[in-house]
This record gives sequence, structure tokens and C-alpha cells, in this order.
Amino acid sequence: MSGQQSYPYLDRVNVPADFRGFTVPELKGLSNDVREFLIEVISRTGGHLGAGLGAVELSVALHYVFNTPYDKLVWDVGHQAYPHKILTGRKDRLHTIRQYNGLSGFLKRSESEYDTFGAGHASTAISAAVGMVAARETSGEKYKVVAIVGDGSMTGGMVYEGMNNAGFMKKDMIVVLNDNNMSIAPNVWAISNYFTELIADPRYNRFKKNVYDLTGKLDQWGDRIRRATARLEEGIKVIITPGMLFEALGFRYFGPINGHNMAQLVRIFQEVKDLQGPILVHAITQKGKGYRPAELDEQRLHGVTPFDKVTGVSPKKAIGPPAYTKVFGTAVVDLARRTPNLVALTAAMPDGTGLDQLQREMPERFYDVGIAEQHGVTFAAGLATQGAIPIVAVYSSFLQRAFDQIIHDVALQHLHVIFALDRAGVVGADGPTHHGVFDLSYLRPIPGMVIMAPKDESELRDMLYTAVKHSGGPIAIRYPRGNGLGVPLNPDFTLLPVGKGETLRSGTDVAILAIGDMVAPSLQAAMALAHEGIECEVVNMRFVKPLDEDLLRDVLDRFKAIVTVENNAILGGFGGAVSEFIAATGHAGTRVTMHGIPDRFVDHGSPAELADELGLDGPGIATVVRSVLHPPSSLTVG
Amino acid sequence: MSGQQSYPYLDRVNVPADFRGFTVPELKGLSNDVREFLIEVISRTGGHLGAGLGAVELSVALHYVFNTPYDKLVWDVGHQAYPHKILTGRKDRLHTIRQYNGLSGFLKRSESEYDTFGAGHASTAISAAVGMVAARETSGEKYKVVAIVGDGSMTGGMVYEGMNNAGFMKKDMIVVLNDNNMSIAPNVWAISNYFTELIADPRYNRFKKNVYDLTGKLDQWGDRIRRATARLEEGIKVIITPGMLFEALGFRYFGPINGHNMAQLVRIFQEVKDLQGPILVHAITQKGKGYRPAELDEQRLHGVTPFDKVTGVSPKKAIGPPAYTKVFGTAVVDLARRTPNLVALTAAMPDGTGLDQLQREMPERFYDVGIAEQHGVTFAAGLATQGAIPIVAVYSSFLQRAFDQIIHDVALQHLHVIFALDRAGVVGADGPTHHGVFDLSYLRPIPGMVIMAPKDESELRDMLYTAVKHSGGPIAIRYPRGNGLGVPLNPDFTLLPVGKGETLRSGTDVAILAIGDMVAPSLQAAMALAHEGIECEVVNMRFVKPLDEDLLRDVLDRFKAIVTVENNAILGGFGGAVSEFIAATGHAGTRVTMHGIPDRFVDHGSPAELADELGLDGPGIATVVRSVLHPPSSLTVG
Repeated sequence: MSGQQSYPYLDRVNVPADFRGFTVPELKGLSNDVREFLIEVISRTGGHLGAGLGAVELSVALHYVFNTPYDKLVWDVGHQAYPHKILTGRKDRLHTIRQYNGLSGFLKRSESEYDTFGAGHASTAISAAVGMVAARETSGEKYKVVAIVGDGSMTGGMVYEGMNNAGFMKKDMIVVLNDNNMSIAPNVWAISNYFTELIADPRYNRFKKNVYDLTGKLDQWGDRIRRATARLEEGIKVIITPGMLFEALGFRYFGPINGHNMAQLVRIFQEVKDLQGPILVHAITQKGKGYRPAELDEQRLHGVTPFDKVTGVSPKKAIGPPAYTKVFGTAVVDLARRTPNLVALTAAMPDGTGLDQLQREMPERFYDVGIAEQHGVTFAAGLATQGAIPIVAVYSSFLQRAFDQIIHDVALQHLHVIFALDRAGVVGADGPTHHGVFDLSYLRPIPGMVIMAPKDESELRDMLYTAVKHSGGPIAIRYPRGNGLGVPLNPDFTLLPVGKGETLRSGTDVAILAIGDMVAPSLQAAMALAHEGIECEVVNMRFVKPLDEDLLRDVLDRFKAIVTVENNAILGGFGGAVSEFIAATGHAGTRVTMHGIPDRFVDHGSPAELADELGLDGPGIATVVRSVLHPPSSLTVG
Repeated sequence: MSGQQSYPYLDRVNVPADFRGFTVPELKGLSNDVREFLIEVISRTGGHLGAGLGAVELSVALHYVFNTPYDKLVWDVGHQAYPHKILTGRKDRLHTIRQYNGLSGFLKRSESEYDTFGAGHASTAISAAVGMVAARETSGEKYKVVAIVGDGSMTGGMVYEGMNNAGFMKKDMIVVLNDNNMSIAPNVWAISNYFTELIADPRYNRFKKNVYDLTGKLDQWGDRIRRATARLEEGIKVIITPGMLFEALGFRYFGPINGHNMAQLVRIFQEVKDLQGPILVHAITQKGKGYRPAELDEQRLHGVTPFDKVTGVSPKKAIGPPAYTKVFGTAVVDLARRTPNLVALTAAMPDGTGLDQLQREMPERFYDVGIAEQHGVTFAAGLATQGAIPIVAVYSSFLQRAFDQIIHDVALQHLHVIFALDRAGVVGADGPTHHGVFDLSYLRPIPGMVIMAPKDESELRDMLYTAVKHSGGPIAIRYPRGNGLGVPLNPDFTLLPVGKGETLRSGTDVAILAIGDMVAPSLQAAMALAHEGIECEVVNMRFVKPLDEDLLRDVLDRFKAIVTVENNAILGGFGGAVSEFIAATGHAGTRVTMHGIPDRFVDHGSPAELADELGLDGPGIATVVRSVLHPPSSLTVG
């Protein structure tokens, strides 16, 4: 245990088996301890707080009722799973969460046998759970499977596909909807509580089964009576509960129940545990529950830096250059003012993408489609068919969800849709599920796609302007998480010639061809190498597609060695593009070294630690250049 | 008009404006003509018949009631849209459908202003329609937007994302659910018909609006009464109609109605046309309606070759080698018999993928998840966590839907999931939406992914066996549409060394490195070139990842010119992989020519016509080799 404080219940608990003998009052005590401990640790280390505080009782009750890890809990996303981590052998390492070589901020199979399925992107848990259920049916095992899904994830189409499939398969499984977004009036609570307790009661379910079995023997009328009674329960649910959607998908709905009432949680879970078929338990929770500052400001304490435990206030960050996200958000508003048909949309990330500014200032030009990237991209295509110019602002790794729609609905129809990919490249603490390191590779084979990456935040403005002015077809800009370089921002906009790079520094020994946020460290490397007598030419390529072939020919004619640098997978990325050009044009004398993300998944850590690990900073790039000039015995791809 | 027959109503109709003055009996006459014409033409040319026959009355009624093309009809997929094509200026070209330079088998914006949104992959229409609605709200236009979606498409998550977003936006739009999969008992018909006509009646809706306005003035109780009346309509719907899902998503549900009753269709569409908010009309139709052979055998007459109009029987195809699909399906069953934990799943394509054989013989080892590729892949990941070995059998272009899930849920967790990508490469008549020409590019950057492509159907068996035996991590096999080469099938299986190719022919002038279905035409090219004194080495690479680096080094040491050949986009594909290797290893003297799908979308046509256009056959490859040895003035990538 960390620190001085003592936790009377949590101190006795390392894994769930340690509290399966507890009474309900003891479980409440354990919940209080988990909550205190969570606030204590996260106030010192930072991390996601609000979602975890809302899921304390749920976590305790689920691990109490279900025989984990034999029974499988499948948590969606993972922000809600910090209490689960505390209760499953990891409390002593909670202070390392989201840090280099520390615990992951999400679920991770390699971290614990209690983490049954990795998470990061939303809406995957039900599909994974259905898979575990299917495996159980053929393996003869008897484990229970419970997926725990937040209300935000419920907007993702995967949830619907998964529930629909589960409803069709009719095998036993439980989905717990952890809903911290619904307020329920007291009188509705009273009625629905009564009804939920009734239909969860084993006596009611035995009675129902008896009626069912009995009516099965009545040839003619049996089926009709069966259907009528089923419909009756459904009809009542529609009138007094919000369970209509789940019933329609073939789940039996229980709820809403109070997700902080330990006695009720334990009773309902125990009762539904052995019911047959797909079950949905709808638990109403409060984000930040039990910690006043988090209850009052859910948004701010969603994901946090360290903070004062009493006030909830984080120390002010040192003032730095504006984030790319902020510069982008402002540029969108500036351009929307002068472009009446410009609109922008995001998938549940107005703040994260900087579009909150447009949302505030021109709400009629802003759309939030929910966690629904597939729909968002085709929605944008629909907008574009009617003359609007849509900007789709999504994190790079989340846009992977809409790969088919980019090809099939946008590019194939040559529609003018602008893709703004924030968080491109390595993102830091969120780790491998969130690193945006594949976009150059997956966008490049798409016919007609233009792909840009700015060297700094001012060029981001110009690229967005260039994208708006682009005559037809899709065009993408990818830019990194974090602060810009602090360069002065052009108050107006400059149109960039599509497919043209710029040479930033002349040299004679090696040409460094850099893209996006790798331009600045490449310049740093060149300066450092100049002190060693190595003269590097540095090119800001700006466009990965179309490539600046004139510039490349010139560089290839003049240099025997070039280094491509990108914050993206080398395979199929910018280095791949340059390699294809070199191979096809037969520049026999030139050797290219591709520097970027190697062919493996990159773990979590601070941006600086990861850049160091990957050599994607000034010193790392300099090392690569040195090895090109003085090569070791052998080199291979990636 | 084609042929001798005369069509009293259709002969007077070229575009919808021509029949807007028709009476309902005349509209029925027009429907009969459209049906006759459709059967007449498709019996001669082949194409999709059943879905179109089911949508004749819907098409006539929608174009009659809505002011197309100003009002927007957005058809999902397109199989159902043949009558729409006939009614919108294209009847004279219907006999060219799915043929080279002829009409597309799907919706296509470049083909007609009535085709408001291209289609091919399922479940996109609602999202596109919501986009058009959003554009209308900012442009000040007044057009109506109607999405027409088949029941099959309703299993796709995009539909849910789109409806959810439409329900949230609350703007006026109509979704027509064209449901040819639901049978409704006569007594339910009677009740639901009465109820639907009632709630669609303008008098009822005026009354409802009056009550709503009036209750708005009652501060305290108004809201409660409003909610209670809304809930009452919902409650009744749940008990007597199948509309629960749509009501839950914020759509007002009307139906089910008889999709072949012209008078009812026209009346309901006229009534709902001006209602506010999102509306869903549920029309029950019969696939193949009005053509006895198609009504009796929906599956067989879904997509057809030419057939005898009276019997519905197609002339027997010449007996050829077995299709890759068939060989795959048999191999799955063979391997499932000896591998108790092997299971297989597909997304609504048991026949198309050959898994129908497993479905019949070992139904407990087979899953059809519906048109839900995202869920399917994560479902497979869930299976793999519990020790099952899942085969995900999906068409190459459809697997694009699950790109994120392959990365995030399978590869990142290093789970042993087998991807079987049927229809990889150019597919023929289905055209650009269905060409599977991106998979090598989008799978290659994924860490840990193994990618194979067999040179013939016997190697497909061995690759599937190799995939089953692969120790951990995802592994993909991509193979083409159509018949194998007719080689003898190894009744047993041979394990292939991962990452090793084979040299099939020795040569001295040029090395042809081929992958998958391009190996055979490369051998043909080599034989033709041998007559001209050009000696080609031909390599079957087998693996795109990992590349056979030893083999490549040897080839690069011995040849000054190599040609890579693939049925995939050149950018980022197999040629890209070889280029990266060459650039990185600095084989200065060797020039690589990448032959494959150029950087543009490929239209529809017969496989032979497209192979000829693209030079992806023996003669085309020979031409490329000649141009390598006797180069023209300049060459560029792609």
C-alpha cells in the first residue's frame, strides 16, 4: 500500500476472493476505502478519476457476485475500470498508471488475468463478450460472461451489431449498462424499482417458466399465450422504463437500478446471474460520485493531471505555445466566417478536437454524431453531395473505424470532404490503442486522396485553408497531439501548392526528408550534426500524397544517402512512398533509410520518453544520420 | 426500348415526371410493365432480379409521390434499385447492366442525377440521407429526403449510428424499410393496418398537434400529459407492431404496410411526406414478386446469369475447375474435423464464402453474425481469448469495415485469428465498390500480421492449414473470385514455411516476383517471352508479410531488373513492400517495376475485360516485361 493512510477494508483485500465472505455493510466499507484510495493516488499521479468513482460499487458488487477470474468481466474502454484494477491485485501499482513501464490506463490482457479483453476504443466489449460466450458453448466450460458498457459507448454501431447478434444467439450473457448520463425522477424510480425487483425475483421467474412449460403442451393456443405474456412484460417495460431499445434487440431488461446502492446491486446481480438468455441490467451512476469537486465538474475531472485532494484544483500548467488542437479550432471558426458552406463534425470529441469553439460560436454549422465514426464519414459524404464542405475532425486512431466509408462513400465518389486527423503519431500516456501511427499507410492507397502534415501550427492553418480551397476530392491533414512550436501565426491564410514541399536547409552529405512534426527535430539534428562537420539538407515534404516528384528527383540526383523521417509506421507510410518512387525511377546510386515507427506496437509513456525510445527526436534522428554515413554491418527494413 | 414487346404504360414513361399525372390504376399498370420489362431484359442479360421485383411498387410510388430528383431518394446497396433505374431515364440501357462500359449494377452518381448517392456496401443510405438533411438545414432548400433500406442492411451498425443521430437531430426525414424477410399473420395485418392508417391520417395528426399545443400552455402538467400521450402511442405500437426498435431510436413508426399495394403505398407516403421529424415506414415486400420461379427460389434468383424466362432456368455452365470459394469451404470442413477448437464465421455470406458447407455439416462450429463485420472481427477476438481458433471469412472489400477491429482487438492482443479474404483483387461485374484491391496495403502495416496469397486452389488448402497451425497472432489469406486453375488437390495438407517463397522458373534476363493469382499469368508471360528469347525467372512469393528476404537478396544480386505483379493497389501493396526492402538494403543496380492496380478506381466489367484493361494477364505482364528491357522515354509510379 502506498502512503500513510490506512484502509480498514481494502487493507484486507488483494484479489476478489479476499472479500467474497464480506457482508453487505462490509462491502460498503470496502467501496468507501476504494473510493478514498482512488482519490488519494490519482490526486498525486493524475489519471482518469470521474468514471472510476462512478463505478466503485459496480466493481465491488460484480467481483463479489461473480466468480472472477473464472467468470469473465469485460469492461468497455477502461476509464471506468480503475476500481477493478484496485480490486484485482494491482492497488500497489496504481500510482504508476499511464506512466512509462507502469500500469496501462486501459484494460490490458498482459497485465492481469482479470483483464479478459484489452480496451481503448469504445463499444467493443459486447462483441468480445459474445465471442467468449460462443467459445464457452463449444468448450463445455460454464463461466459467466458480463460486459460492462458506459452510456457513451452505446452510440457506437458495434454495440448494436453485438447485441443484435447476442439476441439472435440467445445464449446466457449479461450486459451492465453503466449510465452516468440519465437523471430519473423520484416517482419513476419508485415504480421502476418495484417492477425491476419483481421481474428479477426467482419466484416470478419460476412462475413464468412454469406457465411457459405448461403452455408448450397446448398445441393450438400455447404459442399465442406465450407470445402474449412476453409482449405484456415488454409493453409494461416500455411504459415505465427506458428499456425499449434493449428489449427490441432481444435482451431482457432489468432497471433502472441505483448503481451506488450496494444491497440492490448485489441482490439484482445474484438474481439475474442464473437467468437464461441475454440480460441487460441498467445501472444509473454518478460520474465523480463521492468526491465533491469531481461531482461538480465532470468534464474537467474526467482525465486529470495531479491535483489538490481537498479543492480538486490542479496546479496551473506552465504557459506554453498553443496546442495544435486549439489552433485548428480557431482556424475552423475563421474559415467558417468567410465560407458559408463550410461545416464541421466530430465523433463525441468537441473539446478534444477543438471544435467546441465552432460549437459555441456557430452551433448551426457544427455536428457531433456521437461515438459513430462510420456514420460520421458517410454523413459528411451526404453533406458534400449537396454542396456543403464538411470537415471531419477525428483522432487518427479513431478514424480507423471509418476506413471503408472513406474509400466507398467519399473517395470513390470524389467528394470534397476534409479529414482533420488530430493525435496523429505517438500520443503518449494513452498508449498503443490511441497512437495514431497508421494513417499515412491506410490513407495513401486510396485513389484521389491528398495527404498533408504541417511542420508547425502556422502551417496547419495554411493547410486547412488549402483543404477548403481544394477543388474536389478528399483531402486529409494529420497533426500531432500537444503544443505547437510557438511560431507566430499568420492572421490570414496562405494557399499552399498541392504536392509541393520546401527545402528548409541546404546540405551536401545527407538529405533528410521529413514530414509533419518530424521536421523540427530533423532541423535540430541537422544543427547538431553540423557541429560534427556533417552537412544535412532538410526538406519539409508537406505532402505524402501527391509526392513532390520534382523535388525528389533533384534530391536523388544530388545525394547518395537520404533519410525519411515520419511519426507513422514505416511500412506503407511516407518512407514507403519515397521507396516506391526510388525503386520505380531507378535512382541507382541512392540509398534510403526509413526512420519512423518500427513494425511493432508502441507502449504507453510520456511523449518525451517514447520519442527517446523510438529515436524520433533530434538526438535520435542525428544517430540515424550518423549510422547512414558510417553504417554498421547490416540493416533491415523496419 | 429493347425488343418486340410493347408496354402500354412504360412506353409513355422515360422519367418520373411522365407519370406524376397517372391514376392509381395507371400506376398499377406501370408497375406491371416495369416488372415484365425487368424480367424480359434480365432473362437475356443477367443481373440481380429478385430484389428489384420486390421493389417495383415501392419505386413507382416513391417517384410518384416525391418530386425527384429535387427530392432525394437514397437507395441502400442497389440490388433493389433496378426498377428505379428503369423509371429514371435508363430503361434503354438496362440491357447493358453490369457489363463493361454499361450501366452499373448499383447506384452511381455519375450515371444519373436520380442516383443521389453511390452504393454497393450495405447500410450506408441512412447516414448519407442524414447528411443531405443537414445540408438542407443550412442551405435553405426544401427538398425531402427518403432513404430506402433493405432488411438485410438493418443488421449493420452504421444503420444504428445513423438512425440514432437522426433521432437526436429531430429533422424531417423518412426511412423506408423494404422488408422481404418478415411474414405477418393475417389477423396481425388487419389490426396493424387499421392502426397505421389511423396514426398516418392527417386528422389524427392535427388533433395530436392541437393537444400538444394546448398542453404546452399548461405549465405544471403539460409536459407530463405530453409524455404520457407519446408513450401511449409507443406502448400500443410495441404490443401490435414490430416497430419498437425504431421508436427507441427516435423515429415515428408507421407499418407494417403491404409494399405491393399501390393505393396504400401512395396514401401513406402522401400522408407522412409532410409530417415532422424522423419517420420510418415499414413496407413488407416479397423478393421475386410477380415472377413465379423467383418467388419460389429467392436465393438462386438473387443474382443471376441469363435464364429462360418461362422456367427461370439458366443454361448449365460449362464444367470448369472448382471455385476458390468451394475449395476453401471444403478445406474448412476437413480441418474442422481434425481440429476440435476450429470455428468459422462470416458476415451474412455463408454461400458467398463457401462456409455453407460447414454450416450444414457442423452447425455448432459456424456463426453468421449478419452484415456486421466490425462485430464479427471482435467477436472472433473474444473467441480466440478462450482458446478457440476462429476463421473470419469475409470478402476483401467488406473487411475494410473492420480495419480498426483488426488492429485494436486482434493484432494488438496478438490473438490467433485467421482472416480468409475471398474476392481479393478485381472482382468483375460488381465493380469499384466490390473490387478487393486494398487488402495487401491495409493489412501490411499492422504489426504481427502474416499475409499470404495462394498461386492456385491447392496452395489455398495448404495455406489454410498453415494458418491453423500458426503459433499465435493474426494471419490472413487472400484469394480471388472465380475458378481455380484446375490443379489436382492434395487430399492431405502440407505445412508451408512462413515467410518463404518458391522459384517456379529460372531465368537470366528479368525476375518476375508474383503473388497469388498473378503467379499463373506471370508463368504464361514467361513462356511467351521465351519464344522471343527473353528468359524470365518467375517466383511465387506466397507471403507479402513477412517477405522472403533471403530469396529477395538472391534475386536482387542476380538481376538488374525485376517486376512485381499483384492484383492489388500498387501503393503500399506487394510492390511497395519489395520497394521498401530494396531501398533499405541499397541494392543499387536493380530497377523494380511495380505492376498491379494503378492509383485510380477500376470500373466494372467482365474479369477478362478488366484484366486486359489493367494488363493483369499473360499478355499484359509480357508487355510490361518487354518495356522494362526496352524502356520508353520515362516512367512514373502507379
